[in-house]
Amino acid sequence: MQLTIERSALLKALGHVQSVVERRNTIPILSNVLLSAGRDRLSFAATDLDMEMVDEAEAQVNVEGQITAPAHTLYEIVRKLPDGAEVSLSYSGDDPRLVVQAGRSKFNLPVLPAGDFPVMSTDTSGTRFTLAKEDLARLIDKTRFAVSTEETRYYLNGLYLHTVAEAGIPLLRAVATDGHRLALAETPAPEGAAGGPGVIVPRKTVDQVRRLLDDGSGPVEIMVSPQKIRFEFGQASLTSKVIDGAFPDYMRVIPKGNDKQADIDNAVFASAVDRVATISAEKSRSVKLAFELDRVTLTVRNMEAGQGVEEVEIGYSDEPFEIGFNARYLLDVAGQITGETAMFKFADPASPTLVLDPGDPGVQYVLMPLRV
Amino acid sequence: MQLTIERSALLKALGHVQSVVERRNTIPILSNVLLSAGRDRLSFAATDLDMEMVDEAEAQVNVEGQITAPAHTLYEIVRKLPDGAEVSLSYSGDDPRLVVQAGRSKFNLPVLPAGDFPVMSTDTSGTRFTLAKEDLARLIDKTRFAVSTEETRYYLNGLYLHTVAEAGIPLLRAVATDGHRLALAETPAPEGAAGGPGVIVPRKTVDQVRRLLDDGSGPVEIMVSPQKIRFEFGQASLTSKVIDGAFPDYMRVIPKGNDKQADIDNAVFASAVDRVATISAEKSRSVKLAFELDRVTLTVRNMEAGQGVEEVEIGYSDEPFEIGFNARYLLDVAGQITGETAMFKFADPASPTLVLDPGDPGVQYVLMPLRV
Repeated sequence: MQLTIERSALLKALGHVQSVVERRNTIPILSNVLLSAGRDRLSFAATDLDMEMVDEAEAQVNVEGQITAPAHTLYEIVRKLPDGAEVSLSYSGDDPRLVVQAGRSKFNLPVLPAGDFPVMSTDTSGTRFTLAKEDLARLIDKTRFAVSTEETRYYLNGLYLHTVAEAGIPLLRAVATDGHRLALAETPAPEGAAGGPGVIVPRKTVDQVRRLLDDGSGPVEIMVSPQKIRFEFGQASLTSKVIDGAFPDYMRVIPKGNDKQADIDNAVFASAVDRVATISAEKSRSVKLAFELDRVTLTVRNMEAGQGVEEVEIGYSDEPFEIGFNARYLLDVAGQITGETAMFKFADPASPTLVLDPGDPGVQYVLMPLRV
Repeated sequence: MQLTIERSALLKALGHVQSVVERRNTIPILSNVLLSAGRDRLSFAATDLDMEMVDEAEAQVNVEGQITAPAHTLYEIVRKLPDGAEVSLSYSGDDPRLVVQAGRSKFNLPVLPAGDFPVMSTDTSGTRFTLAKEDLARLIDKTRFAVSTEETRYYLNGLYLHTVAEAGIPLLRAVATDGHRLALAETPAPEGAAGGPGVIVPRKTVDQVRRLLDDGSGPVEIMVSPQKIRFEFGQASLTSKVIDGAFPDYMRVIPKGNDKQADIDNAVFASAVDRVATISAEKSRSVKLAFELDRVTLTVRNMEAGQGVEEVEIGYSDEPFEIGFNARYLLDVAGQITGETAMFKFADPASPTLVLDPGDPGVQYVLMPLRV
């Protein structure tokens, strides 16, 4: 293998794939990036066995070939090279090292054979559809904060992406829950999406996809099969296994009959929650909300740290009542409300509360109350 | 105690003093800030027993008095209050809590008696001088990276601030060393400084002073006694114990006769060191420098991670020779060089190397070589 490539193109592609590579690996080759030099192109692949990221870049290839080299080290070297540098990559059987050269810099990196690199099998079946970058970003942003990190309930460790039909309209929907709160965001299903399998996309994959959305432009091609999901961003693509489990029947959790409604200025409320939460103990960040006519009083009491009380004017005309929530969860939801107002719908202090965003009718949040 | 104070004034003073307060304290009152309301002023004090920070702010005091309350919690609450808020602080024997009120926010914080707050005794003796803010910042910036963190050699865990006379000119000098490198910066001694005691200012104090310099303007008043040092920044002041130990005779470490000289473009050299250091193992970040006519070759070899080689054009006309340094230490020095060029002065591969900054004749760096 022998080729020359522009530093910026190399950096971009390496940046994409190296973020999949774990810092510590018991299987040495998983620390490496697979470099494949074909005609006028250099391809990159990295994997953690659950997720595979590939990209490619234009290069002036003199000798085609394949090799693997340490992904993070190579990325760091290229990152530190001066802007505009021409980088030469070469590997021949004579020197068992990848030689990286640019100007008066020369690096020799240890390699492992390309043949040992685990390549993920691609499913040819499955549905395929295209989603605008902004739509995918929205589905992720509105929901991923609610993904569980508890490993025992592994089927909650991801975003449930699936299609439904509501009133005959097909929707693409993302749902996340950790058992304490639930977030749902939906968008009109793109052509080809309806009828595809519902899949649980692992948290690490979701985070990686979100990062790639910041970097690229244009729509994202998505392919879904029962075992895998693939996101194509132009030349770059990410293939991931999905979580092998059944996502719970979340519709049963979303309350339908909550009839007490509070219309709350989201920014004012979020500041008040944030302030009273200063008082709360690290573990149970419980804040009590006491609703009465056009007003909510927020209280946090803590034996050691004292007490905080905030009053916020709201729109509320139902009977007075009190309910408690985890302050962190209230703030997470507030952080995603698009409009000025958040609409809270309550049943009673022990039942799930629904939070709606009048600025974005395609999202729903459910919060389980805490006893206060 | 009952008073009203502007949020911004309260935030600034609390911000100054709370940074002295440790996150965890076995003595509860050390988590608190001492609030003393006098005529038209609120004073603040916080301490970790080694260092005491005091500040004050204008306030509308209705009832004078003193109390202590949790420093970090109070700071966080005030930080989260809206800009422009008027904050009321009150404490009476009836409610054993400090009441913090602003708009529709009300907090009750636990208190401890002001009488239990440890106040540092002030030395009335000692020298006293004034230093421009920029001069003090320079003395700190050029040297503090070399302060040792090894607790066994406690007398190296600070900045040695003292006066000397060179060729009859009195100089105020700061020196730090960790045994592997040494940094020295000096400035003409301000009036009143000469003849004062040399003191070792603890690292935490140095960091705190440096932070305060970013915040304030105007000169800093410094008082030095054999046991304590005090920095006055307008209303705010920081009093710190100094390290009770003898700073080593650092002049014996600074080489005088090094006759091999290399003039090196600092930015180009720093980039090259940073790149080859990518290869080095975390622990021993050793880079080999091979000097020959007008050129230095930087090499890092690592059994696992490969090899990196960089060539840099320099001004060098002495005999070829090789020497090794810790890459981190080279980068620390490069980060403080003011001019375009760094001047390295070598004796031999086993002896201390002197690095000078032609852009700032008042600094000297000494690096101990590593075997390569």
